[in-house]
Amino acid sequence: MKVVKFGGSSLADGPQFEKVISIMKADSQRRVIITSAPGKRHDGDIKVTDLLIKYAELTIKHADTSEIFKRIFARYQSIGNYFHLDEKALAPIKQALRKLPTTKYPDNEYLMAAFKAHGERLNARLMAAVMNHVGITAHFVDPKVAGIIVSGEPNNATVLPETYENLAQLPVDNSVLVFPGFFGFTPKGQIATFSRGGSDITGAIVARGLHADLYENFTDVNAIYAANPKLVDHPVAIPRMTYREMRELSYAGFSVFHDEAIIPAIQGQIPINVKNTNRPNLPGTLIVPEKDFQPTQTITGVASSTRFAALYIHRYLLNKEVGFTLKLLQVFKKYNVSYEHMPSGIDDLTVIFDRTQFDEDTVHNMCHDIREVLKPDTLEWIDDYAIIMVVGEGMRDKVGVIEQIIRPLVQHNIGVHMINQGASRISIMLGTRRADAEEAVKSIYDAFFSPDPV
Amino acid sequence: MKVVKFGGSSLADGPQFEKVISIMKADSQRRVIITSAPGKRHDGDIKVTDLLIKYAELTIKHADTSEIFKRIFARYQSIGNYFHLDEKALAPIKQALRKLPTTKYPDNEYLMAAFKAHGERLNARLMAAVMNHVGITAHFVDPKVAGIIVSGEPNNATVLPETYENLAQLPVDNSVLVFPGFFGFTPKGQIATFSRGGSDITGAIVARGLHADLYENFTDVNAIYAANPKLVDHPVAIPRMTYREMRELSYAGFSVFHDEAIIPAIQGQIPINVKNTNRPNLPGTLIVPEKDFQPTQTITGVASSTRFAALYIHRYLLNKEVGFTLKLLQVFKKYNVSYEHMPSGIDDLTVIFDRTQFDEDTVHNMCHDIREVLKPDTLEWIDDYAIIMVVGEGMRDKVGVIEQIIRPLVQHNIGVHMINQGASRISIMLGTRRADAEEAVKSIYDAFFSPDPV
Repeated sequence: MKVVKFGGSSLADGPQFEKVISIMKADSQRRVIITSAPGKRHDGDIKVTDLLIKYAELTIKHADTSEIFKRIFARYQSIGNYFHLDEKALAPIKQALRKLPTTKYPDNEYLMAAFKAHGERLNARLMAAVMNHVGITAHFVDPKVAGIIVSGEPNNATVLPETYENLAQLPVDNSVLVFPGFFGFTPKGQIATFSRGGSDITGAIVARGLHADLYENFTDVNAIYAANPKLVDHPVAIPRMTYREMRELSYAGFSVFHDEAIIPAIQGQIPINVKNTNRPNLPGTLIVPEKDFQPTQTITGVASSTRFAALYIHRYLLNKEVGFTLKLLQVFKKYNVSYEHMPSGIDDLTVIFDRTQFDEDTVHNMCHDIREVLKPDTLEWIDDYAIIMVVGEGMRDKVGVIEQIIRPLVQHNIGVHMINQGASRISIMLGTRRADAEEAVKSIYDAFFSPDPV
Repeated sequence: MKVVKFGGSSLADGPQFEKVISIMKADSQRRVIITSAPGKRHDGDIKVTDLLIKYAELTIKHADTSEIFKRIFARYQSIGNYFHLDEKALAPIKQALRKLPTTKYPDNEYLMAAFKAHGERLNARLMAAVMNHVGITAHFVDPKVAGIIVSGEPNNATVLPETYENLAQLPVDNSVLVFPGFFGFTPKGQIATFSRGGSDITGAIVARGLHADLYENFTDVNAIYAANPKLVDHPVAIPRMTYREMRELSYAGFSVFHDEAIIPAIQGQIPINVKNTNRPNLPGTLIVPEKDFQPTQTITGVASSTRFAALYIHRYLLNKEVGFTLKLLQVFKKYNVSYEHMPSGIDDLTVIFDRTQFDEDTVHNMCHDIREVLKPDTLEWIDDYAIIMVVGEGMRDKVGVIEQIIRPLVQHNIGVHMINQGASRISIMLGTRRADAEEAVKSIYDAFFSPDPV
């Protein structure tokens, strides 16, 4: 049995719905569908989720919502019209959308979550109606009924383990189950959403809960590529990769597949197939457990991210000082910052941070505190920091990979000021200046993938 | 003004004393001499320090000490005889040595420290007597009078800061001051020694306290070499290096110069000249502050150590777990082990330990606890772990050094399972199997230093 998730662009209008339905029809194993909210139909279009945020904001301000309400409903209506659905079939959608501002919420955060969630929720209702209309027996399954229970922030929730017990008890018949993605319910019965892109997460949760054989994730790209197509011209598609390769590449900016969404799939050991709704016959990328993977090449992909900054500290006998790490962690805690990596030398230490969590004041004050507490001989804040991740199960215990990676960088005169190999066995992390990151990815890609290396 | 320290082999017998005296005469800037205890005169000989340990052990056991007493005194006497010293001049040495067993000590640890310290203390007395006898005005300076104040374990003491104030007040005239190395006095007046090899430490402390222009460290090697002469045939000498290069190389097993002894010199910014007593006209190795160093080559030295072990942990989202590092540190604390480095990946972590602090039970139990506490998917204890350090101020910000280092390893088919570059700017740390460490050092040495690279 396959759980199939479709992204927003795959559900943006009637013709896209038609493609989805024909994909569902093409394989009788596709028994469960997870919907996103209708996405952009063309450049400049607005996603329904963004319209719903607007709707929520106007509601909070007690402003007039009639226009935005109409605009949102029109999106669903136009899809219904494409399939010549009865007005009657659309009535529950209209009603649910209209009820949103008059419902009681614990606070505006929950209000926002409930509004946003309806992009997916109403699209799932619509999909079920359309499917039944075209002759596929389908049931809308509300996360409340299915028991997708979450906790945490209303707009950044985390699934609770009882969800999987609930899903396992879901009655399954011959009809297709249509789940809305992106949200669950708190134990108190409030809607709370996952982080943005959270339909991927719902898909993985449902696939795990229903013990699916495969989790198909349909989106608008043919596959996951060995490098970012914005940096490398027509990169090769990755036919097959492991969960942890995906995790490592996601970390350094591969955004095609939602990072957190992979965890439930890993926990259930369910393979994930990333495919293109518009070209469903392409094989896409299959993401599998390590045990089901035999590497056929050394590296699987290369990614870069410029969202990092580093702190360099030098002091003689620094690392011999008892409690030194603790003092440093306490300063980080005071400023509520977390670190990514902390490679240490003999008398020095580099701390790598996600730069996005800092404003200028925090950088200044935190460095000041560290100077006070640790009295280093040298303290340097290095703002110009990019990380390149080279990932591949095929590089495990292979001699000479690092040389193959470094050689093209040297040829392009790119300075590498950090190398972290060995913490992970299937990746090598390099640090460069931001300006060099793109060229670094290109030259490493060319060295491993170009038929005619530069 | 120069402070000059001589090692045990440089003070082992009369002919060696003569070399030392001619070295002192050769430069009028040499105003302060630090003595070690008489060392081995030939292969199979026993160092006076080891005889004193025996003397202490017999004393603790209330056994007969007359033979060991005679044997120790004979060492000093033979040096006195070589210079035709009066019996009278040797009387205070004999008396001090004889008094050792009847002196009161707080406990056997302090007894041991006091016995051991007399190797240096009596050799300094003897040196002052010999110098005066040959026409050099010299004064024995007892650490008690000079105010070398220490704390901590009786046989592994640490200098206290007031020592430097005391030394600054020491009256300096035209005579040569003769300090015994290796020990100081606790605030309560008990002798306590530094760790073994501690004459280097005394030399550095005195050099700092007296604001010397140079600290000359005379030993029995011509210089510090770019690689261990046991691994590489006739390695080149290092003419000039920085403090931190020395620190990094010491870490990975360069033992010619006592690691901790460099700190007081750094604090006082006093250059250190490592020279050979037997070939005093050779320039030796000069260790200088970073500000006084212009690198003339990329790497300064390469060292290896096989005293490491590593722990590899993999679990999805490991590094996202709040308090994860803390939990791990708590396990380490429970077993009283400290770690050297902890490079982290996305979902994994390698912890590098000094292997010498573990017995098999500790490894087993600690790994068991970590399994319980962190529930990793994979936990591996890697006992077969060597670290190669490639060090050089000249590699700072230089493109392509890492490639030059890796290439010879690939050519020799040596697997590198860890690279840590970037924490320190002047070194690159590599991890290999123990069996590969020697070959790794050789091939990196050849790549950088051989006139005709293999």
